[in-house]
Amino acid sequence: MKPFKSLIPLEEAEKTILEITKPIKRTEEAPIEDALNRILSEDLVANMDIPPFDRASMDGYAVIASDTFEASRTKHIKLKVIGSVHAGETCKLQITKGDCTQIATGAMMPQGANAVVVIEETDSDDTTVQIFKPVHPNENVSKKGEDIRTGTKVLKKGTQLSPRHIGVGAALGISKLRVFEKPKVAIIPTGNEICDIRGKLAEGQVYDINSHTLMAIVLENGGIPVKLDIIPDDRKKIETAIKKTLRYDLIVLSGGSSVGERDYLVDVITKLGEVKFHGVQIKPGKPTICGAINGKVILGMPGYPTACLTNGYVFLAPLIRAMARLPEKSEKTVKCIMSQRTTSTLGRHQFLTVRLVDGKAVPVFKESGAITSMADADGYVEIPANVDMIEKDEEVEVKLF
Amino acid sequence: MKPFKSLIPLEEAEKTILEITKPIKRTEEAPIEDALNRILSEDLVANMDIPPFDRASMDGYAVIASDTFEASRTKHIKLKVIGSVHAGETCKLQITKGDCTQIATGAMMPQGANAVVVIEETDSDDTTVQIFKPVHPNENVSKKGEDIRTGTKVLKKGTQLSPRHIGVGAALGISKLRVFEKPKVAIIPTGNEICDIRGKLAEGQVYDINSHTLMAIVLENGGIPVKLDIIPDDRKKIETAIKKTLRYDLIVLSGGSSVGERDYLVDVITKLGEVKFHGVQIKPGKPTICGAINGKVILGMPGYPTACLTNGYVFLAPLIRAMARLPEKSEKTVKCIMSQRTTSTLGRHQFLTVRLVDGKAVPVFKESGAITSMADADGYVEIPANVDMIEKDEEVEVKLF
Repeated sequence: MKPFKSLIPLEEAEKTILEITKPIKRTEEAPIEDALNRILSEDLVANMDIPPFDRASMDGYAVIASDTFEASRTKHIKLKVIGSVHAGETCKLQITKGDCTQIATGAMMPQGANAVVVIEETDSDDTTVQIFKPVHPNENVSKKGEDIRTGTKVLKKGTQLSPRHIGVGAALGISKLRVFEKPKVAIIPTGNEICDIRGKLAEGQVYDINSHTLMAIVLENGGIPVKLDIIPDDRKKIETAIKKTLRYDLIVLSGGSSVGERDYLVDVITKLGEVKFHGVQIKPGKPTICGAINGKVILGMPGYPTACLTNGYVFLAPLIRAMARLPEKSEKTVKCIMSQRTTSTLGRHQFLTVRLVDGKAVPVFKESGAITSMADADGYVEIPANVDMIEKDEEVEVKLF
Repeated sequence: MKPFKSLIPLEEAEKTILEITKPIKRTEEAPIEDALNRILSEDLVANMDIPPFDRASMDGYAVIASDTFEASRTKHIKLKVIGSVHAGETCKLQITKGDCTQIATGAMMPQGANAVVVIEETDSDDTTVQIFKPVHPNENVSKKGEDIRTGTKVLKKGTQLSPRHIGVGAALGISKLRVFEKPKVAIIPTGNEICDIRGKLAEGQVYDINSHTLMAIVLENGGIPVKLDIIPDDRKKIETAIKKTLRYDLIVLSGGSSVGERDYLVDVITKLGEVKFHGVQIKPGKPTICGAINGKVILGMPGYPTACLTNGYVFLAPLIRAMARLPEKSEKTVKCIMSQRTTSTLGRHQFLTVRLVDGKAVPVFKESGAITSMADADGYVEIPANVDMIEKDEEVEVKLF
């Protein structure tokens, strides 16, 4: 058993990881129904005009604007109604001076007409209509291509598709959108003491917590988690498992809580690639390993659930978002005061989980092994490596989960 | 064709919708892998102790604490190493005074031992170990049930499951969690001019935008959208479609852009249930219909894409979140100044879509029919019903999409 060697600061670890992270280049077609929040991998260029034809934007009468110029509340203009156009109909009518048609919102403008008088400004009988108000040319008309013109770049490569972008695709009759693939993340639980949650716990074993928290973090940040079988503390078996998962975009090992296992992982990464760092000045989460094999990032997370989960938020989430080309997660924070004097280890950047109780931050951290240290918390306070104490009633910023 | 009747204010419409909204009561089992962000429908009570046994929380030597009390850097205490315990092993060893075992993090404490001396504070040969530092009872030991005790309520009904809550389930070996079902939302596109995006556009037709933006909004807010076939402007067919969809939790009709169609919908709702409001003092989005049939909400959205989408954000999203028991969506806003003088209609609460350009809000609203009015925007400025103008350079709050 060998203890830790030199640790690197949090900022350096974060920087190192992002330096070796590559956004996914592979693309796929997503049916528009499944494209929400995906990242467009190419510009979307309009293949047609929207609207595809001149259409009425109000219910009323399609007229020649100049026929109405003299209209007023006191002097109505009378036009002959030669027909009516409903939405969705082909319109073969031809409007000439003195004529008009009834027209519905969204309906195609008849030939010759260039404006719509809204129904509220008219009065009609079967064959004629009284116009109370003049309209200018193009009034209440959406011209062909007014919204989107053929050839216009309507959505840019890299856009994260929200409902309104989906709407643009639908407007153009596009049922599939080309998007970047999601990063596929292999999650390898390790440790002799780890038992699958669907298995029977033997004496001395605990259930596999970390695979599940890591899978949830991968999902939450736009990746596809693939959980592998639990690997025992065996160097050869760890090597075999890693080699098998090199086809994934990212490999995350959880566990390796003992120094022995960490050594196996370091040895295997050294053999197959390069160790970038091993040990970070954070608490919890110190025994974190980062390496690169064939240009792929491999992360070794601490076995302790709280440490693994903190690492998941601090290192894994930004890494997956960068691979998935998602924007940084927006942080929600609240300022409040500390409920009690709290010490921290000098030289370790501490993530102190807290509950918010009556406007105070109450530490809930038990120990790195305790899942409730996270589950019972509303958020966490970061205590920098050069701070060893927060006084009672001192103001702190709580980053909310 | 009949014009609109009296409109109700935005706030009243919002209140009316939420008053008739019922959170989903049906529950289902979700495999833990699919439970992220779901809402727990019952308290989760621990069925076992976590940890399930006393275990070492550090690598080192399992000792009887009192054997180490006299240890110091200058006066080492020598103990006999009678074995070693690895994580995941059953431990049958019995520690008596003067004995100890090597022990790994996470391993079960041997009988008789009550503390762990960390490896860094020891020096050893094959059969004995020198202890440099005393430990107190329970030091570096996680006691059985210390994290979670059998019978404790660990997660409350109504919790939205995040990675850390998933971890609690996994810790207890729970592979399925009981959660509330997601609301199933029927989306019925209507209108003779509407063509399915996978169909061939006839002259006078436009593609069905609204079903797709509404489906995305339903998904984004925790619902399951079910799109139905496009229904033509026919009262009987609209009635049949609505009757068929009464098994869903919510019915949303899009389209009905013409006054005629709106009338059909009002008539059908009146026949089958009750119209709650018809017409809201907002722009865009005025021709919105809300009704209740057999205790289910039915929403009639305007046909115009921008109006439909605004309504989707304003009315549909909060409604679905309430049904799905999700917390209100947190709004991101920025303050900036208006790029130009902008008028608004008195008596209509306007949602003015804007782009942010050099710290200024630039209106991009074209017309309610233009999907680009939304797609090109970064967010929107709300102009209350009693304000008819925003001056150039006036400060406004932009709600970001």
